Amino acid sequence: MIVILKKNPNPDQVQGLVSWLEGKGITIHRSVGANETVFGLVGDTSVLDIGLISALDIVEDVKRVAEPYKEANRKFHPEDTVIKVGNTQIGGGNLTVIAGPCSVESEEQIIGIAKAVKASGATMLRGGAFKPRTSPYSFQGLGKQALDYLSAAKRETGLPIVTELMDISQLELFDDVDVIQIGTRNMQNYDLLKAVGRQEKPVLLKRGMASTYEEWLMSAEYIMSEGNPNVILCERGIRTFEPSTRNTLDLTCIPLLRKQTHLPILIDPSHATGKYALVPAMSMAAVAAGCDGLLIEVHNDPQHAWSDGAQSLRPDKFDTLCRNLLSMHEYLGAMPRIDYE
Amino acid sequence: MIVILKKNPNPDQVQGLVSWLEGKGITIHRSVGANETVFGLVGDTSVLDIGLISALDIVEDVKRVAEPYKEANRKFHPEDTVIKVGNTQIGGGNLTVIAGPCSVESEEQIIGIAKAVKASGATMLRGGAFKPRTSPYSFQGLGKQALDYLSAAKRETGLPIVTELMDISQLELFDDVDVIQIGTRNMQNYDLLKAVGRQEKPVLLKRGMASTYEEWLMSAEYIMSEGNPNVILCERGIRTFEPSTRNTLDLTCIPLLRKQTHLPILIDPSHATGKYALVPAMSMAAVAAGCDGLLIEVHNDPQHAWSDGAQSLRPDKFDTLCRNLLSMHEYLGAMPRIDYE
Amino acid sequence: MIVILKKNPNPDQVQGLVSWLEGKGITIHRSVGANETVFGLVGDTSVLDIGLISALDIVEDVKRVAEPYKEANRKFHPEDTVIKVGNTQIGGGNLTVIAGPCSVESEEQIIGIAKAVKASGATMLRGGAFKPRTSPYSFQGLGKQALDYLSAAKRETGLPIVTELMDISQLELFDDVDVIQIGTRNMQNYDLLKAVGRQEKPVLLKRGMASTYEEWLMSAEYIMSEGNPNVILCERGIRTFEPSTRNTLDLTCIPLLRKQTHLPILIDPSHATGKYALVPAMSMAAVAAGCDGLLIEVHNDPQHAWSDGAQSLRPDKFDTLCRNLLSMHEYLGAMPRIDYE
Amino acid sequence: MIVILKKNPNPDQVQGLVSWLEGKGITIHRSVGANETVFGLVGDTSVLDIGLISALDIVEDVKRVAEPYKEANRKFHPEDTVIKVGNTQIGGGNLTVIAGPCSVESEEQIIGIAKAVKASGATMLRGGAFKPRTSPYSFQGLGKQALDYLSAAKRETGLPIVTELMDISQLELFDDVDVIQIGTRNMQNYDLLKAVGRQEKPVLLKRGMASTYEEWLMSAEYIMSEGNPNVILCERGIRTFEPSTRNTLDLTCIPLLRKQTHLPILIDPSHATGKYALVPAMSMAAVAAGCDGLLIEVHNDPQHAWSDGAQSLRPDKFDTLCRNLLSMHEYLGAMPRIDYE
Repeated sequence: MIVILKKNPNPDQVQGLVSWLEGKGITIHRSVGANETVFGLVGDTSVLDIGLISALDIVEDVKRVAEPYKEANRKFHPEDTVIKVGNTQIGGGNLTVIAGPCSVESEEQIIGIAKAVKASGATMLRGGAFKPRTSPYSFQGLGKQALDYLSAAKRETGLPIVTELMDISQLELFDDVDVIQIGTRNMQNYDLLKAVGRQEKPVLLKRGMASTYEEWLMSAEYIMSEGNPNVILCERGIRTFEPSTRNTLDLTCIPLLRKQTHLPILIDPSHATGKYALVPAMSMAAVAAGCDGLLIEVHNDPQHAWSDGAQSLRPDKFDTLCRNLLSMHEYLGAMPRIDYE
Repeated sequence: MIVILKKNPNPDQVQGLVSWLEGKGITIHRSVGANETVFGLVGDTSVLDIGLISALDIVEDVKRVAEPYKEANRKFHPEDTVIKVGNTQIGGGNLTVIAGPCSVESEEQIIGIAKAVKASGATMLRGGAFKPRTSPYSFQGLGKQALDYLSAAKRETGLPIVTELMDISQLELFDDVDVIQIGTRNMQNYDLLKAVGRQEKPVLLKRGMASTYEEWLMSAEYIMSEGNPNVILCERGIRTFEPSTRNTLDLTCIPLLRKQTHLPILIDPSHATGKYALVPAMSMAAVAAGCDGLLIEVHNDPQHAWSDGAQSLRPDKFDTLCRNLLSMHEYLGAMPRIDYE
Repeated sequence: MIVILKKNPNPDQVQGLVSWLEGKGITIHRSVGANETVFGLVGDTSVLDIGLISALDIVEDVKRVAEPYKEANRKFHPEDTVIKVGNTQIGGGNLTVIAGPCSVESEEQIIGIAKAVKASGATMLRGGAFKPRTSPYSFQGLGKQALDYLSAAKRETGLPIVTELMDISQLELFDDVDVIQIGTRNMQNYDLLKAVGRQEKPVLLKRGMASTYEEWLMSAEYIMSEGNPNVILCERGIRTFEPSTRNTLDLTCIPLLRKQTHLPILIDPSHATGKYALVPAMSMAAVAAGCDGLLIEVHNDPQHAWSDGAQSLRPDKFDTLCRNLLSMHEYLGAMPRIDYE
Repeated sequence: MIVILKKNPNPDQVQGLVSWLEGKGITIHRSVGANETVFGLVGDTSVLDIGLISALDIVEDVKRVAEPYKEANRKFHPEDTVIKVGNTQIGGGNLTVIAGPCSVESEEQIIGIAKAVKASGATMLRGGAFKPRTSPYSFQGLGKQALDYLSAAKRETGLPIVTELMDISQLELFDDVDVIQIGTRNMQNYDLLKAVGRQEKPVLLKRGMASTYEEWLMSAEYIMSEGNPNVILCERGIRTFEPSTRNTLDLTCIPLLRKQTHLPILIDPSHATGKYALVPAMSMAAVAAGCDGLLIEVHNDPQHAWSDGAQSLRPDKFDTLCRNLLSMHEYLGAMPRIDYE
């Protein structure tokens, strides 16, 4: 951590800061310039509150050098995290395709879609039981009944289930769920993060729609610091000024986070774009950028879906797409790699 | 609602859409152009799911004309909502100054600050008991103990209390709290919104850091549709590309939302700017723009605060500021008004 | 175009609007609802100024239905634009790789890089002569001398040249340049756009760093409406709240603009990310998403480059990347397509 | 400047960096930690190219401590810049109200508006002659003729003139113009900035719609480094995700830039909001936040304006507003100040 002092700081206050830092086990290296003095703090600076130091009268600015996350940090855990779910695994060179409808609507619907996506190559089933909707007047999901329908689809196909948890009170209904999804609106619902950190199921953590990479990793850290190491990151588009798409899909997170964290990285092109016609191209792009998997919305009848039909593929389009994705993933695996230390 | 059809749409599908809409009690006015056909939908379009219509093959685009919120809509509730809290009231021409520390640290601290801000003209006390912090390793608030200290400060000064609720499970501890704050990270935590909608205390709803006005009002609608009409909106800065301030304070929400909703509008310049030196100017600006009140962080010793010291004013600075604000508010009240129908 | 009138509008003013619109050859279809009246305008609405109609007292809102661009619009020009440059062509299924240094530094440097990138498969050479730099104290490019060095490299290798034009006065020096680049900061420098629209060389138009797709296409329209149909679009990252990368590369523009315009679409991953280590993954993603080509910064000695060394690849890394890109492009071409009408 | 080295950097490369920096007159203070080494660079770091250092293999990150601008920096020019224009002056405690139509439409129109706004208290006249419009099919301004009409209005009323320069070639027509405006789309048109830096008229520099404060000050620096010290900053809204207003007016720039620069700061609420009904509240807010002046669009007949009627006030509304603004400015001047060193 770097602390930049104002010009001509009060020497007593400087001494106060130095003593306080040294009391925390921090060593200080000083650079004295004409216009400012800079302290380089060496030691475990993750215990220091950056806001507190910024508040001091003598301080002009504070900049972090080391990342504030530990459990999620590749520096301290160089090996990729690989998460086993049923017969499949996420991370470690696999391409995991998770597909299904935005909302579970009936047992027949979800079993039908599950069979179709499995036949196309998907290895997990997604489907919403509890739905976060902007309007209180929109369909909010079938709840417990949807979870039962998902279980039936799992029994029928063997596909593990991913579904969203919106509130701690729903956790007791999630026995048969394989991966718990935390949605974009709850990425910083810290009580919820701690709750899923205290149980054992893997957690798929969607990026907040206006969250930085660092905030996202800090939310993963909330889960991991409670004892659950199985966190899967999922980018689903960020909010920008562009009105033509629901969100802007930020694929650069893939190569960038790969360096910073050992956690698997999935991409959700359906929510990011909000338009089914854009999903195939962006799915291909995500795989080419090196993601560990995709969440793709598939609906047998998107025109009569109960939610988000506009972003769902029909099973026949998904079939072609899924085969293309798996084929390209294999092809890419054989290419010469371009590495940077 | 306006539905724009693609060129040469399938006539059967068009008829299907027409029948479905008419079945929902919607009347359709058609405009047929050279390149597109436009349907104007007349009736209660708040029951229509915009995503569902967008998903149809024959539809190019859908645009809302009427707002999707009802309870929060000034069109249907032309009178300002005025909320009584203890001996004070929020809205209706008053300027409510709510002040206090980011975190409650001790009984002595909170009573001391409460006395000071009351003497300066504040009419409510704020202080964090449960703190949403980006890092799991940062101080998370004193919890129940802080609520007890706030109660002590209320007994001592008579100031009503505002504090943040992070999870439904904490609600049972909030008996003595006067206004429940929902923080920016929980603005779309719908289960929490429904829970505070099912009880009677007023709710101070902070804008999500990347939420549109419409989403914000829809979150108010979640609370109101459960039966609690006492919602107070609070702008606290939005996320932009500018790195010099923590957030960008969006004061334009004041005159704009004034037309759209009857709910009171408060401003939090402390969290928006993240820097105490910017708080006085932005507080003055907020009052001049016509807000109903302010949330201002005040700390007796910001340099040793347990959180967010960088944005807290000392009581002496707050005293001058609060007097300036109340004085200017009175002065503005006597000015000629500039009205638009 | 849709015009939404306020409730109970003044009938004389409504009649005034109707007459004015009919005088412009517009037909009006009216939808009268309980809370608002909606006019659907049919005819050539590109002649109407949306701001002017919005200004009327009786108007609540105006929404465009038809796109405001014509020359760049695929609706009116369904065939892909294919642009011939030297022996190569941009668009129409080709993958054009344009490579070279951010700044031209010496004849030896640019000839060396040109030979290297040609050997790897690049078909055009890029290099900055006039450099837009945020600071007046930074290196501003070698100017005319750099253009001479580029010409030498072109003579030596046969590679056509792309370089940036910053001001109309420089145009007379561009005789030997094959494609004129308009940079992100000048995307709405309308006098410059008109000037390059009045000459014949193809124009590579970078997206403004906070420009919408529609604004970008309108800037292309400025060039095209002056008589030059050879416009190439180039996405180079947009400005968002994320601080870890210089910009956020918005690859969704590829499938989305493909529907709206017939112009070729290139991607510049070097400027978007600002970090060489992110360029390979994002280049692969861009090709997988279906772009027509890439602009990639290559420098023989990035550590001693005169500008933007941080985003330049060394020729050996570029060689592997370029071969991977061309190979994947061919592989993708053989895949089953997923089309939407 | 702070340079953070990677773990275990190559010692020869470190020595190379050290020698290069010392050759530029920079002194280096080293802090060696367990996970990284930090160099604190002391001396005139404005000569160092941050991108170049970032490009080095051994460097993990580089952070600026000192601002990269000098002429615009309050540290080196502590006194406020006060700019004389005709009989009025901008900065130094004055409130300058600049008013007029978006576009000059006729001699009668501009003289009429000039007389009206002068009577209300405006001290300068604005009006567009060359108009930057998103569409090539929209009205582009009357050009030279408009400048003649503005001169006539100046002769008639004595009000100095502000108008926008879009291209260097127009400069020869600006003899009678008092303040040259550089528009938001040209804030980084560096050749244009240099051109207005080489002449003597004051320059009103609008903030780019997605420019940071630092970039804005660097553009001021471009003008000042060419010899023209008379730069006026003007905030006109920034681009955000919020769709309800054209831009988001960022008033926090006022107290923040006041510390960083000595240049006057104006606010343009008309372009920022795009809606006349929001202009009065945001003008009042700007004055309360401490701005040096305002640019306000006024049109005698906004419903038939040739451009941007939606954001123009009628003279009667402007009259009330202008008197309120001047009155409040005086009232604020008598209030106790809240200062921070």
